[in-house]
Amino acid sequence: MSACRTTDMQIVITFPDGAQRSYDSGTTAMDVAKSISEGLARNVLAAKVNGKVQDAGLPITEDSELALLTWNDDEGKQTYWHSSAHLLAEALEALFPGVKLGIGPPIDRGFYYDIDFGDHHFSSEEFAAVEAKMQELAKQNNEFERKSVSKADAIAYFEEKGDPYKLELIQDLEDGQITFYTQGGFTDLCRGPHIPHTGHIKAVKLLTTAGAYWRGSEKNKQLTRIYGIAFPKKSELDEHLEMLEEAKKRDHRKLGKELEIYTFDDDVGPGLPLWLPNGAAIIEKLEAFAKKTEREAGYERVKSPHIARESMYLKSGHLPYYKDSMFPAMEIDGDRYYLKAMNCPHHHKIFDALPRTYKDLPLRFAEYGTCYRYEQSGELFGLMRVRSLQMNDAHIYCTEAQFEAEFQAVNALYLKYFEKFGIDKYVMRFSKHDPAKLGAKYMDMPELWVKTEAMVRKVLQSMNVNFVEVEDEAAFYGPKIDIQVYSAIGREFTLATNQVDFAQAERFNLSYINAKNERERPLIIHRAPLSTHERFIGFLLEHYAGKLPVWLSPKPVVILPISDKYLDYANEVGNYLKNLDIRASVDSRAEKAGKKIRDAELAKTPYMIIVGEKEQEGRLVSVRQQGGHDLGAMSLQDFAEKLIDETKI
Amino acid sequence: MSACRTTDMQIVITFPDGAQRSYDSGTTAMDVAKSISEGLARNVLAAKVNGKVQDAGLPITEDSELALLTWNDDEGKQTYWHSSAHLLAEALEALFPGVKLGIGPPIDRGFYYDIDFGDHHFSSEEFAAVEAKMQELAKQNNEFERKSVSKADAIAYFEEKGDPYKLELIQDLEDGQITFYTQGGFTDLCRGPHIPHTGHIKAVKLLTTAGAYWRGSEKNKQLTRIYGIAFPKKSELDEHLEMLEEAKKRDHRKLGKELEIYTFDDDVGPGLPLWLPNGAAIIEKLEAFAKKTEREAGYERVKSPHIARESMYLKSGHLPYYKDSMFPAMEIDGDRYYLKAMNCPHHHKIFDALPRTYKDLPLRFAEYGTCYRYEQSGELFGLMRVRSLQMNDAHIYCTEAQFEAEFQAVNALYLKYFEKFGIDKYVMRFSKHDPAKLGAKYMDMPELWVKTEAMVRKVLQSMNVNFVEVEDEAAFYGPKIDIQVYSAIGREFTLATNQVDFAQAERFNLSYINAKNERERPLIIHRAPLSTHERFIGFLLEHYAGKLPVWLSPKPVVILPISDKYLDYANEVGNYLKNLDIRASVDSRAEKAGKKIRDAELAKTPYMIIVGEKEQEGRLVSVRQQGGHDLGAMSLQDFAEKLIDETKI
Repeated sequence: MSACRTTDMQIVITFPDGAQRSYDSGTTAMDVAKSISEGLARNVLAAKVNGKVQDAGLPITEDSELALLTWNDDEGKQTYWHSSAHLLAEALEALFPGVKLGIGPPIDRGFYYDIDFGDHHFSSEEFAAVEAKMQELAKQNNEFERKSVSKADAIAYFEEKGDPYKLELIQDLEDGQITFYTQGGFTDLCRGPHIPHTGHIKAVKLLTTAGAYWRGSEKNKQLTRIYGIAFPKKSELDEHLEMLEEAKKRDHRKLGKELEIYTFDDDVGPGLPLWLPNGAAIIEKLEAFAKKTEREAGYERVKSPHIARESMYLKSGHLPYYKDSMFPAMEIDGDRYYLKAMNCPHHHKIFDALPRTYKDLPLRFAEYGTCYRYEQSGELFGLMRVRSLQMNDAHIYCTEAQFEAEFQAVNALYLKYFEKFGIDKYVMRFSKHDPAKLGAKYMDMPELWVKTEAMVRKVLQSMNVNFVEVEDEAAFYGPKIDIQVYSAIGREFTLATNQVDFAQAERFNLSYINAKNERERPLIIHRAPLSTHERFIGFLLEHYAGKLPVWLSPKPVVILPISDKYLDYANEVGNYLKNLDIRASVDSRAEKAGKKIRDAELAKTPYMIIVGEKEQEGRLVSVRQQGGHDLGAMSLQDFAEKLIDETKI
Repeated sequence: MSACRTTDMQIVITFPDGAQRSYDSGTTAMDVAKSISEGLARNVLAAKVNGKVQDAGLPITEDSELALLTWNDDEGKQTYWHSSAHLLAEALEALFPGVKLGIGPPIDRGFYYDIDFGDHHFSSEEFAAVEAKMQELAKQNNEFERKSVSKADAIAYFEEKGDPYKLELIQDLEDGQITFYTQGGFTDLCRGPHIPHTGHIKAVKLLTTAGAYWRGSEKNKQLTRIYGIAFPKKSELDEHLEMLEEAKKRDHRKLGKELEIYTFDDDVGPGLPLWLPNGAAIIEKLEAFAKKTEREAGYERVKSPHIARESMYLKSGHLPYYKDSMFPAMEIDGDRYYLKAMNCPHHHKIFDALPRTYKDLPLRFAEYGTCYRYEQSGELFGLMRVRSLQMNDAHIYCTEAQFEAEFQAVNALYLKYFEKFGIDKYVMRFSKHDPAKLGAKYMDMPELWVKTEAMVRKVLQSMNVNFVEVEDEAAFYGPKIDIQVYSAIGREFTLATNQVDFAQAERFNLSYINAKNERERPLIIHRAPLSTHERFIGFLLEHYAGKLPVWLSPKPVVILPISDKYLDYANEVGNYLKNLDIRASVDSRAEKAGKKIRDAELAKTPYMIIVGEKEQEGRLVSVRQQGGHDLGAMSLQDFAEKLIDETKI
């Protein structure tokens, strides 16, 4: 703060890049923006003041860190969509006088509002009218005005308006903490923040409706939830709608069924996928790939049971802290056994099974261990949210001196995988501790935190990866990196984490003999770059729109005899390829070649081999690539070589 | 019976080969034997009359099927060892007057007797004296005389003798059903049968002692259990003792620890092995081998969760019939979930996930599925009796017309595996139904039983495999084959079963559309030729005495630099091999080459590569084979090619 001189009436604003400027006390974020440029000010949606998001128009009265939030910031978007929800409510009140309002928050992509339409049955056919009204109101450039109200006044307002839901919400609020927001003729109970005015909302689209019980309880009335999205530009909305349309086509649940990847069965249970042969083939390929890269990276494979005694999870701390996410106990011989929710404790036991010295380290134990986690049945979603998880798991036990190189190697593995799967957009979120919370939220090992975080940052910087640093979001036991990747159509998936662990070695009393012949605790790195088979295959199906690359395709080639006369030769070709470990199949149906080709295209088969008289006589294959590209006739051997090359992992 | 004319005083004896002869009623099996040959009679130990084993000296008074039992029959051996137990008791009474006797049955290999020595502490140092006394008594050729006694007389006898244990046993017996056996001066309460006389017992050996609670209850007194074995020839005893000695060295628990294959941990739980990297490496090799052969045999891989809802197991019939062998339920969302004890129901669900027609069959679903079975903790034994079982499982769904070829293919797989693992001694036990028990013990599908059993027999005969037919031991749902293999030292292991199943398709309502466009139930074959990883690796460790063949060895090659100067070159060699997917390691310890070689031999490493100046300069490796055979120096590439060839699966 010494860089600027301040008077009593002045405050110092520190910007994200560390630059500082002094302003009159009571200045607003919008004033600050204007002082920089009018263009910037036009784009400001909200402000982050000392870590808290608030209206850009609120006065700032003390020295503060300030970030001006625009559409480019996640928190800017969230504020924008929150305001859009208010705009939706305003439009609905205008069109359907007397509707009662529930809540209307922003969500990951867009917003919703829960509405009680009374006797009216609202349907998506009315979307267009509502959208038009929203656009009309938005053009009025109405400001979002914030006002503090007493609890009594708040109650009086909504009693007069006759809105039972808001009244119920007010009951739970403390007097003195209640605020209203008004834009145009519409006032809502809301803690904010909001964008400066409705004029920012240029393009809106209502997406869908759903029933939603008031406050999530089946005992309450079911309201109509209306989902929507809004953008500052029409072109962005169009792009988004296109992406949604494409995502629908690429929905892994739809593709999973069409391509016979997996299935669910009532007698097995929700969230427990059964992998059909095509799915198992993809799993085999992924595992072969993971095992190869892990072998090259010096990992050793281990294998552990899916259950363990209660004492194991008391030691690890999963019990009681993680109990709600675990399946309940099975009682045997007076003991409780649990399905494992994580592989770590089992791996720690394998580390501990033999005496270890510094010469044995680093030890890298990898296992495709299937874990079981209890998710509420309402939370289950295709392969993305399941109860059985086949994790690409590994734990690295190393010395402090080895940590940096090990962490770097793990990150290199991530980058290698991104390249392999054509993931060109990703963010690594580097979550750090807060020194003020050592001993409480974080393990009290200040030096180790500082040292490992510095090493993690150094690794991320030196590798030139795309990362952001996040304060106060580390795990209890160490800094971590969450990896978010974006599918080909730009949808975000949180796939994996890469974590440092100071705690488990202590809990499991793990040690090695160091060079001074003393016992020392190893550092542990948890990593799962290929996530779980469930989530990763779900992601890949969307990412590739089901058209998996040849090496990963469960059916890389299908042989299509143009008539029964060439079935023998087709089988000969099929067997030749199968013997080379290529999962070829023959379409022996009594269908026309055209139909067979269409079906193979629908099944996203990379290569179709058409065999008829010419091919049989010349011991050739005519090769057609997915999407219609004709590669012409070639010898079976040439084609096999090409395929072997393309299916190599 | 019409083949022989009989008078009232004559009976017809039918021999196992179907031949019939008539004898005077009241003739004994021994008389029959003598009528055939004196030599045979000398070898007869007992008789099987109409399926029941009894003394060879008992009169036969009705037309009967008769098998004369000798040392070559399992039941002959059992009778022999039972009599040996009596001989042990006789010797102990002679040497330790006043000992009280518990029970003395034959066991799988040998016999034991539970003895209350009172205040005397019996130890294995006294074995020799007891063995000598047994031999002395045996030479007296005392007959085993059977006598029926009333309950009152039996009680009176043992009251006078003062034997509380026998008195307790008598209490539970019915009057009229009690028999005594006497040889020489020793009389025991016993239902028999016994061998003709003690003279058959030529070579005895007491093996070990153990504490054993009377009647298996901890509430009772602990008696001294003495285990022994006896043979008709000294040479057979010697062979057996040698085998036991060898088995001790080959004990998979001992080798499993020494070779760092697996471990148990208290916090994980008994019967739940954790596989260390060496064990996991063996598993990987076995799976690669199984997957390759199964792929070649037209199997498809599937993958299923380790749990399922209660409804699944009610459908399959595991509940309630198999409940005691299953882990207890986990309650979720008001439902019960169970760990799977078998993979079949999950595979049936995968069959049922898509509509199937006759053109899709046969479908062969393979999975290395881990099942969980509850075994009493006292029954757990190393890898041979565990609670987690990684099964080399598969289910074949086929039409009746396809059954024979499918069954034959499964058997061919077994034979292929026997050859691969050097198993030259095996027996397939073909267990059949009993037509009298159709609808009760066996599914009431008489034609299908006859048809499939005939097909199974035809397959076994045509393949010229070693098999025995066993009446009335089929599964409820179809005929089955149990495969018993013998390790290199002749110990028997029951590894796997191959079963036909008529029932599950019905229970799961599985069907396919046949060529007539009608719904039809598939036949199902269950098979697991490589057993479970646990049992099979346990077997292989004994079979190979830990010296696994190169392809299966978790550490096929270790590189031994003769000094630190050659460590870089050693690592270069190691990395070269690792890049070829050969699990090579470098012994970088500061030890003498001699010590490194000795340790590599102890670790059963197939190849030791010694590198020093000569090797480094010439880019060579000096290769030493396990057991000391020196293969001399060769180029690294030549050695790698040799190894690739030997590790091919």
